[in-house]
Amino acid sequence: MQDLESQISNFLLRIEYDGAPFCGWQSQRSEPTVQAALEEAIFRVTSERVRVHGAGRTDSGVHALGQAAHVNLRTALRPDQLLAALNSHLPPPISVWDVRAVPLKFDARKSARLRTYRYHLLFRRARASLQRGMWVHFPYRVNLQRLRAGAAILSGEHDFSAFRSAACTARRTRLTLQPIEICEAGERVMLDFRCRSFLHHMIRLMVGALLEVARGRLDLDQLESLFKGAPRPASLPLAPAHGLVLMDVYYPPEAFDEEASDEH
Amino acid sequence: MQDLESQISNFLLRIEYDGAPFCGWQSQRSEPTVQAALEEAIFRVTSERVRVHGAGRTDSGVHALGQAAHVNLRTALRPDQLLAALNSHLPPPISVWDVRAVPLKFDARKSARLRTYRYHLLFRRARASLQRGMWVHFPYRVNLQRLRAGAAILSGEHDFSAFRSAACTARRTRLTLQPIEICEAGERVMLDFRCRSFLHHMIRLMVGALLEVARGRLDLDQLESLFKGAPRPASLPLAPAHGLVLMDVYYPPEAFDEEASDEH
Repeated sequence: MQDLESQISNFLLRIEYDGAPFCGWQSQRSEPTVQAALEEAIFRVTSERVRVHGAGRTDSGVHALGQAAHVNLRTALRPDQLLAALNSHLPPPISVWDVRAVPLKFDARKSARLRTYRYHLLFRRARASLQRGMWVHFPYRVNLQRLRAGAAILSGEHDFSAFRSAACTARRTRLTLQPIEICEAGERVMLDFRCRSFLHHMIRLMVGALLEVARGRLDLDQLESLFKGAPRPASLPLAPAHGLVLMDVYYPPEAFDEEASDEH
Repeated sequence: MQDLESQISNFLLRIEYDGAPFCGWQSQRSEPTVQAALEEAIFRVTSERVRVHGAGRTDSGVHALGQAAHVNLRTALRPDQLLAALNSHLPPPISVWDVRAVPLKFDARKSARLRTYRYHLLFRRARASLQRGMWVHFPYRVNLQRLRAGAAILSGEHDFSAFRSAACTARRTRLTLQPIEICEAGERVMLDFRCRSFLHHMIRLMVGALLEVARGRLDLDQLESLFKGAPRPASLPLAPAHGLVLMDVYYPPEAFDEEASDEH
């Protein structure tokens, strides 16, 4: 009979976090990160020192409602037991809202087919007070018609090289951005970005550009020219991290199938 | 020529606040309150020590996006100047997002015709992390069909005596509650309550009762019997304050008309 404790299982965790107290997802030597907090909670629950592999590395201050990560464990705990135990060891800004056993081949980053991020903008003179850690205050006069026109230009298949940080190491910069969805509720505007993957700072640079467009400081032609190799204007701002929330990471059903090769 | 400084104007303020750091709206001797913070900001801006009259006294911990208040001032500042100056003197959890001059007869409490409150519920095992100051975690098994049936029973004209605190001093307890609107977004459920006025703790007691109904610990018949003078079960819980947000206070257009009697 096989020792249950020695058998490796792969678990998919779905994670919500308030990004404010963390220096992003990825573990760093001395700063608090979401990944390190999860790994510490897992160690306290299972006594296993393991790596938690996220679907994406959110920047410092970026929030998540639907982050995904996989982790290989030898624990005999069932997924629902793991969920309860992890939450009792995690700090309040992080919670694991789902745990499921997945095939060993499942990889939170590589198996993902679509990532959805939402950016939260407050267009009025007064700053945000309730939920002020998530709404980005933009007190300037904006033209939402121009914002929508700019969003239409960004949507679709393009080389997004102009919308990535100098530190971005991605090899593929040609991506297909689903049509940006704009949800207006009075002075509050939410922008939904969906893409298989994003470049580093891509969404915050796109939001920064759209705000310049909405404010009349960047022409729609100039925006479009950024896809044609035009140098990025030095003034193009990086929108603040705290307006951004990773809403969901989508996996196709076959990502959860045990492959024939795993069974023989 | 009349001295502008000595002429009293009435201003309507629209206010957003995060209720967490405050002991409610109403000024108290030693505790921080929203009213006291507004009165202090007004004093710093205008050197006038005045009372700010709110449309409703939110409990300790209750939030607001659309609180309303009126204040009589001798200031010569225009409404937009007042808005900017007040926000620069208010702490971040409070912001004034609109200021308008209104007739002297306008009274934020008495002129109001409808108040809208929203209650935020999170039905899942894991607690809330993002916006955890606004979502009330309810980790028990619930039947949303029963929640909706309970909400239908509460809606309408009733004597709401069973749904008020012992400290409530309101004379009228017969009120007409508009149909409770239930918005479901996955595990997140928002309940919208609209009424001309509410009794003290009325919404939190109704939410507490609805959660008991949804959990199967209170029958729909028992809920209905509370309107017929049945004693309130001792177990009926008061739902937490932090799930509640004052969304809007509605004034009819005539509240902003200068009356003939004011002009002669």
